[in-house]
Amino acid sequence: MTTSLSQVFHLEDWISRQLSVVEQALDQWVSVDASAHLEHQAPSELMAAMRYAVLDGGKRLRPLLVMAAFEAVQYGQTPGMSQSALRAEMSQAALRAACAVELIHAYSLVHDDMPCMDNDILRRGKPTVHVAFGEASALLAGDALQALAFELLTPDVAVMPATQQAHLCRLLARAAGCTGMAGGQAIDLASVGLQLSESQLQEMHRLKTGALLEASVMMGAACGHTSVVTWNALQEFGAAIGLAFQVVDDVLDVTADSVTLGKTAGKDADSCKPTYVSLMGLSEATAFARKLKLQALDALERTGLADVRALQGLAETVVDRTC
Amino acid sequence: MTTSLSQVFHLEDWISRQLSVVEQALDQWVSVDASAHLEHQAPSELMAAMRYAVLDGGKRLRPLLVMAAFEAVQYGQTPGMSQSALRAEMSQAALRAACAVELIHAYSLVHDDMPCMDNDILRRGKPTVHVAFGEASALLAGDALQALAFELLTPDVAVMPATQQAHLCRLLARAAGCTGMAGGQAIDLASVGLQLSESQLQEMHRLKTGALLEASVMMGAACGHTSVVTWNALQEFGAAIGLAFQVVDDVLDVTADSVTLGKTAGKDADSCKPTYVSLMGLSEATAFARKLKLQALDALERTGLADVRALQGLAETVVDRTC
Repeated sequence: MTTSLSQVFHLEDWISRQLSVVEQALDQWVSVDASAHLEHQAPSELMAAMRYAVLDGGKRLRPLLVMAAFEAVQYGQTPGMSQSALRAEMSQAALRAACAVELIHAYSLVHDDMPCMDNDILRRGKPTVHVAFGEASALLAGDALQALAFELLTPDVAVMPATQQAHLCRLLARAAGCTGMAGGQAIDLASVGLQLSESQLQEMHRLKTGALLEASVMMGAACGHTSVVTWNALQEFGAAIGLAFQVVDDVLDVTADSVTLGKTAGKDADSCKPTYVSLMGLSEATAFARKLKLQALDALERTGLADVRALQGLAETVVDRTC
Repeated sequence: MTTSLSQVFHLEDWISRQLSVVEQALDQWVSVDASAHLEHQAPSELMAAMRYAVLDGGKRLRPLLVMAAFEAVQYGQTPGMSQSALRAEMSQAALRAACAVELIHAYSLVHDDMPCMDNDILRRGKPTVHVAFGEASALLAGDALQALAFELLTPDVAVMPATQQAHLCRLLARAAGCTGMAGGQAIDLASVGLQLSESQLQEMHRLKTGALLEASVMMGAACGHTSVVTWNALQEFGAAIGLAFQVVDDVLDVTADSVTLGKTAGKDADSCKPTYVSLMGLSEATAFARKLKLQALDALERTGLADVRALQGLAETVVDRTC
């Protein structure tokens, strides 16, 4: 049942197929109807801010990583279950995992843009949530998006096995919390105006951006079946592209303009934030990103998986992107 | 193995026994050491704000409800497991559930007190988190506490069965999110200065405060074994005391002073927020709280459980409290 590797793989086509499914799922799940439980439904103003934060924008790198990792591992064996039934159940889980990770990412942007944090007014080419809806609504929309991520991962057990729900919640909670994304943001906040060593900068970024990107890969893998060797190699892959993503972000903050980025460029330098560019210079930072890409691709080979072309393509996209 | 009902039950002793366990668990789990995963650990400044928000204060009503509901249902049957092993595993789950609910409650207070929301400077007799640590840290500490709640519910499966983890995450995520607490806060925010009908006010409070209190009861029950009849009756109990709690809160906002409350009194009236007192007057609101208490006690009888004295005592405490 594995895809023949002689078949030509077009990353753009693959991305566009995945995105159409993910965008539709986000549109459906981040809605008043989908979130109705018993007699309660979400207030429409809150849902409007949540939808504004999530829909119609973003590269969806994290959901794509979930789907790519899931596809790469999905041809494992589960005795006693037909391949088609297995695949349907698993892809439901992967889709929920993909959307859950994106909701965590979206909430973090909403809170990160607020006046008490980065005070940014432009995101994905649109006014930020607090500019469009007010600060209090932005705060609540972010909070509600985090909870909704865990709701997506815990549907009725008829939809998704409890073991998978628990595993996905565990991976996401750790990646989002104080030893993951929120922890990284706290280090970021505390380090404004400071000179960090490379290892300190790396720790900050491994938490702030890397943890959720790595978790995306692992959550996709957790929706299928993997050996320990594959699991560990995928984790190395996720860690390498997680860090590479941030290094490239630092480079682009210097080299790209706001219109291309869809957010305010030159922001890090203006706010005296330590970056890979300020630490090692532009060309060294660019070279470091390339080195991380090679590390990622090397780890991918060690997974022993038959078809990792989507993961490989995404790793290249992360490093070679211009926005 | 059930407690003999002829044994005298002292609520204060029961509460003090539970609190010593819960406080110790919170102190242990909201810490840099406990949250370390792989090579990462939580930044100490972030953890300091999280601990400040959680430890050393609060009535811990939600954890007490979890523990009381768990104790009430815990004598169910699981074939093939010894009673003592069963109870140890279940009480580990109940303790994690109790702490997770409290973390969600604590995070909501941190965010609710922020300048863009209620702009409150006093909480549990101490400066609020944003006053003590700054707004950005308060925002991040709240975000990290929400994630930590789900981390507590998803330890290694050797500690807690995956089915229980998934069930508890499901109950908590729904109660915390846009059809629960965050949704209620959004309605609250949108209703400042408006005249709400009783049903609108009730919907707001059922979400804002009621959902998490009800979830506390259900999460405790989910750590044991219940029939559908018991489950439904406990849900009615939880809903009634959830609403009663808020009605009494509205009454106390008018009748108590700031020192007794440990937070700013008269705040709701000052900010033109609709309350049960502004809607129905003080004596009607007080009578309504008593009616809800009777509803709760009636539901408790219909659970068919042998010993519900802790739940009963907590229901009375919720309504008869003076702070």
